[in-house]
Amino acid sequence: AVTGSSSPMSLSQCQPYWTSIDGDIDAHLKHAIPIRSPLSVFEPMHRLTFSAPYTTAPALCIAACELVDGHRDQAMAAAAALRLTHAAAFVHEQLPLTDRPRPKNRPTIDHLFGPNIELLTGDGIAPFGFELLANSDDPTQNNSERILRVIIEIARATGAQGRIQGRYNELELEYVQSEDEKWSHLAWINEVCKKKEGEMHACAGACGAILGGGSEEEIEKLRSFGLHVGILQAIGSMVKRGEKAHMEVVSGLRRKALEELKAFNQEKIGPISSLVEPELLLSVK
Amino acid sequence: AVTGSSSPMSLSQCQPYWTSIDGDIDAHLKHAIPIRSPLSVFEPMHRLTFSAPYTTAPALCIAACELVDGHRDQAMAAAAALRLTHAAAFVHEQLPLTDRPRPKNRPTIDHLFGPNIELLTGDGIAPFGFELLANSDDPTQNNSERILRVIIEIARATGAQGRIQGRYNELELEYVQSEDEKWSHLAWINEVCKKKEGEMHACAGACGAILGGGSEEEIEKLRSFGLHVGILQAIGSMVKRGEKAHMEVVSGLRRKALEELKAFNQEKIGPISSLVEPELLLSVK
Repeated sequence: AVTGSSSPMSLSQCQPYWTSIDGDIDAHLKHAIPIRSPLSVFEPMHRLTFSAPYTTAPALCIAACELVDGHRDQAMAAAAALRLTHAAAFVHEQLPLTDRPRPKNRPTIDHLFGPNIELLTGDGIAPFGFELLANSDDPTQNNSERILRVIIEIARATGAQGRIQGRYNELELEYVQSEDEKWSHLAWINEVCKKKEGEMHACAGACGAILGGGSEEEIEKLRSFGLHVGILQAIGSMVKRGEKAHMEVVSGLRRKALEELKAFNQEKIGPISSLVEPELLLSVK
Repeated sequence: AVTGSSSPMSLSQCQPYWTSIDGDIDAHLKHAIPIRSPLSVFEPMHRLTFSAPYTTAPALCIAACELVDGHRDQAMAAAAALRLTHAAAFVHEQLPLTDRPRPKNRPTIDHLFGPNIELLTGDGIAPFGFELLANSDDPTQNNSERILRVIIEIARATGAQGRIQGRYNELELEYVQSEDEKWSHLAWINEVCKKKEGEMHACAGACGAILGGGSEEEIEKLRSFGLHVGILQAIGSMVKRGEKAHMEVVSGLRRKALEELKAFNQEKIGPISSLVEPELLLSVK
């Protein structure tokens, strides 16, 4: 179903590339959030950051930066901030609040700490991402305008019009509708997958391109690529937990995503194009 | 108990100054967070932002900016961000979590929305403060370095080593100690008031001075002034809910706060000095 001259590389061919990126982001975060005094604050922060489910958004941010000929280091703080905001949101989404029961078909997690600590830790992790970003300002590189732009991008993607709105939609679709009129997969894809994973990956693609010095056109193409990839990833986790996704939606998303890569150097798009590979839909890390 | 040549102005003398600042911050925020579509997201965001208890930190930020000869507009986004992060933290502090009962002697609030919505809204309000700040970058003013510095200041004051740590301490002092060994007021002042209201006001003083173009010495003096003022304000709310504060602590804090203002133009310190006035301790807005 893939059109165009550029056939995506398979995920296994590109695994060394993604492993190297993920290793670098991990090392950056471990350095930024050591387990240190006061332990009551930093141990939960460290452990909850590293126990959040894997997301490809931070790696996409680095790959987008490298695709526009930027250096990996230029996008590292943004990649770390994306990991942190994802972890903060995930911790809060798992909090046991008193008003509504959890739906039966959702996986539950083992809570590492009590609800008060997990609430506070999420609240501590989120601003730390912005601190890391602002701290990555380097006067010798004259990059402060780019960093301010990326702060706006990440604040929007994680805020009331981004992930938060997706989470509102998710709660509405899960709880407000009666069991009889169970949400359709298409509503889920458009209202939840798009606002959550979609816009987070769109933000990641745009931020990587901004920090790597891409043109406005490249920034918008990588934003659109990220949007499609994020929705594909979200569909991957739906498939994983046994829900049937619309296969025509999947092939449409893949086609649109690859379309955005046509304007780039075709010798360099191999790794980033592997993010649309269907094997991802069945074996998300 | 006040030493030095500069006697603080009374709060009533300065009321027009503070009213004018608070009105400007309100107008700025009402413009930034209109009630708009989707209402399910923006109505709680608007209402919870404006229903949070009053804090003097944003007004102090503006006053510090004006004291170092800055324009009010230069500190407006930071003042708005301080209001937003305060509102976000307050909403989360009031969430009904399942693990621990609320202590009996604390005031409770009327919840405007359900817990899930209040959790999400707090999560949406906090990054919006950083978005406003980053958006206030004005290339014609060449102020991006100052804004990045202020983002770091506010992220730290609201994060794991600032207000979050104060909240951890508060929970520990409230719940972990048995009723018999009720926390002492001094422990409360040092572990909670200082980390929460203290460091938020310290941050406000420093940010106002940074954005107004103050020298490093002025920034540090206004940070220290803010720290003392914030602890005084927190003691004010303890007194308001019937708890005896240590009066010698109060006069020590006032003396130290006013000491920090000695290096400034004595004709301009009247309004900002009124923040240490003891009448505030009994009539916090």
